[in-house]
Amino acid sequence: MNTTHFNQQLEFLKEIDKLKLVFRQSRLIDDFERHEDSAQHSWHLAFYVLILKEYTNEPFDVLTALKMVLLHDVIEIYSGDTFCYDAEAVATQEAREQEAATKIFQLLPPTQAKEYHQLWLEFEAGETPEARFATAVDCMQPIMQHMAHEGKGWREKNVKRCQVEKRMAPIKAGSEKLWAYIMQQIDEAVKKGYLEE
Amino acid sequence: MNTTHFNQQLEFLKEIDKLKLVFRQSRLIDDFERHEDSAQHSWHLAFYVLILKEYTNEPFDVLTALKMVLLHDVIEIYSGDTFCYDAEAVATQEAREQEAATKIFQLLPPTQAKEYHQLWLEFEAGETPEARFATAVDCMQPIMQHMAHEGKGWREKNVKRCQVEKRMAPIKAGSEKLWAYIMQQIDEAVKKGYLEE
Repeated sequence: MNTTHFNQQLEFLKEIDKLKLVFRQSRLIDDFERHEDSAQHSWHLAFYVLILKEYTNEPFDVLTALKMVLLHDVIEIYSGDTFCYDAEAVATQEAREQEAATKIFQLLPPTQAKEYHQLWLEFEAGETPEARFATAVDCMQPIMQHMAHEGKGWREKNVKRCQVEKRMAPIKAGSEKLWAYIMQQIDEAVKKGYLEE
Repeated sequence: MNTTHFNQQLEFLKEIDKLKLVFRQSRLIDDFERHEDSAQHSWHLAFYVLILKEYTNEPFDVLTALKMVLLHDVIEIYSGDTFCYDAEAVATQEAREQEAATKIFQLLPPTQAKEYHQLWLEFEAGETPEARFATAVDCMQPIMQHMAHEGKGWREKNVKRCQVEKRMAPIKAGSEKLWAYIMQQIDEAVKKGYLEE
């Protein structure tokens, strides 16, 4: 057992514990007062991939997509969660996240650092079937949380239909079926006053 | 798109959100006041599998082991988390968990219900390479959290070396290397007074 190599792995596993303290805008379904954290969100997305994979537009490797959803947010340990409807934060998001990715993945031994950093870049680029499906569920899951709360989180911030629709556009590339369902949900959200027209 | 089938999938995905509210004995490394929940724990274990898989005693299918760690605790939504050093709770644990498994997995469409219930049973039985490695990291991760807090959680409950050693025994079947490391950690914990001799 190579001690340096093993210690690097343990250091990474210890550091990512911090993702449990990165809070998102979305709330827990059974406790609106509690913000979801990015570790919980990533775990939930893994189930979205496993349970909904039949709706993909094209075949994809499930293990790769799972790794992507599990790791896609670890960079937030350093860059923080960016609320997708906060234009100012979104403007600096990419630079902050690229820097954070270098910092977090280089904790790992070189081979794993490269593998997981590459996988994160592949997810961000969204140009492979795995990245497209992973992105689709990453967009879809918060909508389901918001709908379960009758749009309370959206109403508090006066979120508009066009903002959500724009944000949901990448679902189509991963899954036409899930996208059609989410478009129906948005229609319903507007009709019920959860979202502004 | 079969609506009943899809609605069952969405119902399961909504129900498992509750795992984010099942709190464990272990604490977050950077905030001892915060108990880890079982969704965070399951997410963390997925990384333990991915990062430490080279230390397995025997080859295993990574996707299967990942699914196991992601789902192994969902039964706690109904059965609650059982503190492993609470003898009374441990006595009724199996019956409570079997019942809970039936209840949670049958939310899914039949084929997925069967697949994930079987996988949970396979994890519990611990008789396949995937289950052995998944169990090994499930035992190991809380030790790492406790050590990061200088055993504060153990000290509060006067936990003894023999209790932890007994609990850690299954690691050996999954990984002799990780087991040897954890035995060293336990020695150190006793030496430093984190655990009672």
